[in-house]
Amino acid sequence: MTSSTEIRLKSRPRGMPAPGDFEVARVDVPDPGPGEVQVRNDWMSVDPYMRGRMNDARSYAAPFQLGEVMQGGAVGTVTASNAEGFAEGDIVLSFNGWREAFTAPAQTLRKLDLHGLPPQAFLGVAGMPGLTAYTGLLRIAKLKDGDIVFVSGAAGAVGSLVCQIAKAKGHTVIGSAGGPDKIDFLRDIGVDRPIDYKAESDLTKALLREAPEGIDVYFDNVGGDHLEAALTAARPFGRFALCGMISAYNSTEMPAGPRNLITVVGKNLRLEGFIVSFHQDLEPQFHADLARWVSEGKIKWRETVKEGIEQAPEAFLGLFSGGNIGKMLVKLS
Amino acid sequence: MTSSTEIRLKSRPRGMPAPGDFEVARVDVPDPGPGEVQVRNDWMSVDPYMRGRMNDARSYAAPFQLGEVMQGGAVGTVTASNAEGFAEGDIVLSFNGWREAFTAPAQTLRKLDLHGLPPQAFLGVAGMPGLTAYTGLLRIAKLKDGDIVFVSGAAGAVGSLVCQIAKAKGHTVIGSAGGPDKIDFLRDIGVDRPIDYKAESDLTKALLREAPEGIDVYFDNVGGDHLEAALTAARPFGRFALCGMISAYNSTEMPAGPRNLITVVGKNLRLEGFIVSFHQDLEPQFHADLARWVSEGKIKWRETVKEGIEQAPEAFLGLFSGGNIGKMLVKLS
Repeated sequence: MTSSTEIRLKSRPRGMPAPGDFEVARVDVPDPGPGEVQVRNDWMSVDPYMRGRMNDARSYAAPFQLGEVMQGGAVGTVTASNAEGFAEGDIVLSFNGWREAFTAPAQTLRKLDLHGLPPQAFLGVAGMPGLTAYTGLLRIAKLKDGDIVFVSGAAGAVGSLVCQIAKAKGHTVIGSAGGPDKIDFLRDIGVDRPIDYKAESDLTKALLREAPEGIDVYFDNVGGDHLEAALTAARPFGRFALCGMISAYNSTEMPAGPRNLITVVGKNLRLEGFIVSFHQDLEPQFHADLARWVSEGKIKWRETVKEGIEQAPEAFLGLFSGGNIGKMLVKLS
Repeated sequence: MTSSTEIRLKSRPRGMPAPGDFEVARVDVPDPGPGEVQVRNDWMSVDPYMRGRMNDARSYAAPFQLGEVMQGGAVGTVTASNAEGFAEGDIVLSFNGWREAFTAPAQTLRKLDLHGLPPQAFLGVAGMPGLTAYTGLLRIAKLKDGDIVFVSGAAGAVGSLVCQIAKAKGHTVIGSAGGPDKIDFLRDIGVDRPIDYKAESDLTKALLREAPEGIDVYFDNVGGDHLEAALTAARPFGRFALCGMISAYNSTEMPAGPRNLITVVGKNLRLEGFIVSFHQDLEPQFHADLARWVSEGKIKWRETVKEGIEQAPEAFLGLFSGGNIGKMLVKLS
């Protein structure tokens, strides 16, 4: 019998979550029954969308349950298998994150062919955040020749890939992130005009300065003043992929919407929200394109890594204070 | 030499326009030169979008100029022609509204084949408002089988046609308008569940009550609390055609945006603004469909008529105080 430390939701946060909203527990991990596999997690993901699952509200993903282990993407190694097609040492992707080890039915796991990538890349650039970037930019915003692209949260796991896909396709990219380290990262990945929003008192002015000709595509990870600025800077027939609005996730009141939404009418703009899980059909095409871009040296990625399951809440909270460049990960073994 | 009374923009309003922002003037109308036609306007249109043109702001339509005659749709009768293809008595559509008569190059006019409709219908149900309804519902919102449709400004020129097109195609329609007379009109045109927004303290609650199963399509003429309610009531993959936001046109401050815009992400919603002039290619198809629906008795329309050019400002101002059921028109001769 193996044992595992796991993180449970202790209380539902109001506003910004605190460490006390989580609790650490130790559980036994059973041996795998018929059709089951036992896995030791090597990496787990923390993602902004998890904040929504901490609320007791109906959404596209069910709420985390109080007193129960949280969930999320994880990559691990099979330690025992009682299922056809899975062998000890296989690397598997699951949604059984926030824990060190688990036993689960084999059909809930996905065996990874690493294609030369490190396993944790399948939680980031080659995983859900990567497919999110690809889907939002190409399918939702329908990037086309000549588009000028604005990306908020541009130094994050999703945003940094959006920037690089747009650059790989030859576009001018304006990216917003907070602080000089992130701006350096944006320059490193080829962003033409980085905006340090923390150094700007008026984001609309900053965007109009960096994109005097306007923008055609906005990839929104932030909402709030970023969305308002993008609406003002948008050129006619601009397309906005609304991926997330991290500025609002911890609001205790309903956040004010953009005051210039009326511009959507006169400029024939399209704003479209999306959840990547409805676009899994794009994954093979995404992986093929990604492999090519990586081989051509067009895609770089960064990770911000915390070590040990006990650090998982801190890693998660860091997402909301700008604590990560690139993908935020927790290394578990 | 003919003379004409016309309405000029005297001052740019801040907030709600007032009668004093307009001035009445009398001008001579020259005889038509080569290639020109002289027209006596019979009807002119007042439309909410004209409020935007009173501002000195770049938009899809150029601002009205101070001290100059305003512009807009008009239907008139040719009184003298010096252009091939136009003869006295022809009925023509032009953008030379807000005046009793004018002389203009023939290529700026469109000779109307009335198809049995009254001439002023080409300023309403068969004209720009009609094509706006058709475009927004079918091309922008991409109405499809089973969609539940919500329309704001449902008793107006555009909204009342949106409701009836949706009904002609077999959909459940929820329509919002202000006051019992308009609600009677909505029932008359087949709206399944009319909402008198003036009688509701909480529009979101009202919409959720009338559409407990949610909505798939929202045709927005109003913005503000109507848009917020529609976002809350929207079902996944809902589509919003943003046609206008009359609630905001006279705001002196930037109006608050919807506080629940974040729902666009989780519900995979699409919000798309549009200006009908970019969709003129749909007109033949629209006219064919309209003729069929009219012949089948599926489309009714109402007019609110003011008489005489001097009433044009009052007619226009009435648009913002809910003074019209159906198309607001000024009869000029």
